[in-house]
Amino acid sequence: MLSDAMKFCSNCGSPVALRVPPGDTLPRYVCDSCSTIHYRNPLMVIGSIPEWEDCVLLCKRAIEPRSGLWTLPAGFMELGETTAQAALRETLEEATARIELGELFTLLSVPQVNQVHLFYRAKLLDLDFSPGYESLDVALFRESEIPWKEIAFRTISTTLRHFYADRKDGRFRVHAGEILQSERRVDATP
Amino acid sequence: MLSDAMKFCSNCGSPVALRVPPGDTLPRYVCDSCSTIHYRNPLMVIGSIPEWEDCVLLCKRAIEPRSGLWTLPAGFMELGETTAQAALRETLEEATARIELGELFTLLSVPQVNQVHLFYRAKLLDLDFSPGYESLDVALFRESEIPWKEIAFRTISTTLRHFYADRKDGRFRVHAGEILQSERRVDATP
Repeated sequence: MLSDAMKFCSNCGSPVALRVPPGDTLPRYVCDSCSTIHYRNPLMVIGSIPEWEDCVLLCKRAIEPRSGLWTLPAGFMELGETTAQAALRETLEEATARIELGELFTLLSVPQVNQVHLFYRAKLLDLDFSPGYESLDVALFRESEIPWKEIAFRTISTTLRHFYADRKDGRFRVHAGEILQSERRVDATP
Repeated sequence: MLSDAMKFCSNCGSPVALRVPPGDTLPRYVCDSCSTIHYRNPLMVIGSIPEWEDCVLLCKRAIEPRSGLWTLPAGFMELGETTAQAALRETLEEATARIELGELFTLLSVPQVNQVHLFYRAKLLDLDFSPGYESLDVALFRESEIPWKEIAFRTISTTLRHFYADRKDGRFRVHAGEILQSERRVDATP
């Protein structure tokens, strides 16, 4: 939960202590020198499901974790942007791909790593894509070609499974859920 | 964007510099002493729309910002929890109210303050609610009784407007969007 331990106050540089502040219920890093309480919160990872005809675009990761495995274009949301802007930017950065963003599709909590992953449906606007600096390869896959055993993260395989199930049903809806610890363990042993 | 300026490295206590790291595109706080790059990302605020018959539960804020104005129960997502758990916890903390969580309803980016607000529909399980330590009052409101001019945040009024529009249509769907700067300015001048 507090894996990236804070040692010093980012405001005054003094050592911090981990304890429950008055009126609070959870331990926080607190600075007794300047009285700053340093809150830490989950991060959002945002991406898209770029479609072209009956294919979906996937990126082969060039960086850890899970380098060499396939993912939908996604990454950490930046300050000052909306979730939609984050999805567009990450798709451009990882696949140099231009998309028209569609509806919100999945919202998946991953409490073990303090993340929430969010994916939008999207239409690929042209075939002029290529690996961005965090990708080794970018390619279009039909459903039968998806490399299910080489998918980088459980949120990606969950999103793709919902996508194909909904496409078969002829109706796309929003899927909100979570990736459980047990599932993650299975996922971590490919 | 970087309002809470970082001055010292939380890992080693040395002064940090704000610059674009090699291979990156945005300025980050970097430590030349221990080489740590300190990323900063938007935060999630999560809440519920607790329903009882034709009423919705609102909380009168006891804390800044917007103390004395009305809000849906909501707050910052904590490490180690899911978005659904955050909605349940915040509703219990702010209104001591027990709910059965329903579907995801709104996902609203507020880029000016680096936040994403997310609300779930919910059923209030009983009438044994009361103000939590961050609330002055908690009450049930029919649509005609909603204090529209005393709503604390634009994400709350937007969520309530979508809620009543969908209820009238007889069909609830997920609303993803953003609160724009101009709207926020209007909202900030009640």
